[in-house]
Amino acid sequence: MPRPRSAEHEAARRAHILRAAAACFRQRGLHGATMASICKAAGIGTGALYHWFPSKEALIEAMAETDLALIRGFAERLHSFEDLIQSAIGPPAASDHNSGLGNVGGLGPELLLAGPLAFDLFAEASRNPRIHAILHAHYSGVRATFIARIAAARARGDIAADVEPAALGILIGSLREGLGVIATIEPAFIDDAMHRLARAMLESVAHRPVNAMSPDTLPSRNVEAP
Amino acid sequence: MPRPRSAEHEAARRAHILRAAAACFRQRGLHGATMASICKAAGIGTGALYHWFPSKEALIEAMAETDLALIRGFAERLHSFEDLIQSAIGPPAASDHNSGLGNVGGLGPELLLAGPLAFDLFAEASRNPRIHAILHAHYSGVRATFIARIAAARARGDIAADVEPAALGILIGSLREGLGVIATIEPAFIDDAMHRLARAMLESVAHRPVNAMSPDTLPSRNVEAP
Repeated sequence: MPRPRSAEHEAARRAHILRAAAACFRQRGLHGATMASICKAAGIGTGALYHWFPSKEALIEAMAETDLALIRGFAERLHSFEDLIQSAIGPPAASDHNSGLGNVGGLGPELLLAGPLAFDLFAEASRNPRIHAILHAHYSGVRATFIARIAAARARGDIAADVEPAALGILIGSLREGLGVIATIEPAFIDDAMHRLARAMLESVAHRPVNAMSPDTLPSRNVEAP
Repeated sequence: MPRPRSAEHEAARRAHILRAAAACFRQRGLHGATMASICKAAGIGTGALYHWFPSKEALIEAMAETDLALIRGFAERLHSFEDLIQSAIGPPAASDHNSGLGNVGGLGPELLLAGPLAFDLFAEASRNPRIHAILHAHYSGVRATFIARIAAARARGDIAADVEPAALGILIGSLREGLGVIATIEPAFIDDAMHRLARAMLESVAHRPVNAMSPDTLPSRNVEAP
């Protein structure tokens, strides 16, 4: 049994195991990666791994929670409609960094479940109800986070009053995921013309006012909806 | 060795094997399904399977070609901007039929690679260059097919002249794939409000003329761009 440690030490050890496991999953696939290969990659014994995470599902669930915390932190920094557009379509000419699923706001490289592993999980979700439940909880959390930010932007007048925050959130999320799918096949398909069109499309539905506040003219980073 | 047969018989036998293999892949995953399990599902001997398809990659490649032919047939029937919108977002309240990847124009149930299997293939594409090459060829074919239809709609005046067919094609394709991703998690997320917003968004960028021809007022189903 591991000795009692400080909470900080425990959290760091947990994070280390999750990163090693995510690397194994990405390299060998969800089924190809064994608990033994994860122990080896993390440099820990089997007992220690099972102490923390008794199954692959437990690992995936913890990864999803870690990612959601990162995504919530990212969403807190979204303050304008422009920020929302960027979180969906990313900067032009950076599409090769956008491949895979779950690459919210370009956080992909920092997230444990984004990229190829997310495809594995979506495939597995149709066969394993526990994986589906983990993804459902994770995406529900991401959705709620973005809806709250969109509602705040609408309350500030940055998004037209007749736009449903939930509908715009799903639209932005769909576009984000779809671009990740296409970029997995061929990043060059997502070119500047596509970026301009996607931007025009999002701006049109949100009825962004001509004199909308840009991020730098926002009164404060902490201004919220009343 | 199988005896020589009529071309028609051969095609039917090939299609039967591909359907059985796709069912195996969906049920057990790309790695879980063995060539032996595919033989059993198709009711054929190992020699017969290897005669037609020497590897899983050969099966996937043939499935992709079969699907592309179906998608091309579907695209031939797209004649209005409304048809294009439907091919992207589908009818409202049918989102549970839209889950998974590659469900072009709601053809999902007819396509061999759409749905959960497509997620498996995208995951595998990051680890297996042959699978990536098959997906690349397939999606390039789908993309070219849709770009041609969009260009024809633009030439008819159904889409604004300043819209790049390739950019609109990728935008529609991204939305299609992204909605499939979201519907895999929770079909209810794709509600009527989302449908209305997606429609408004696509209509706005395509600058659809107010008096645009509806499908029934089109002069002929065979009118093409000059």
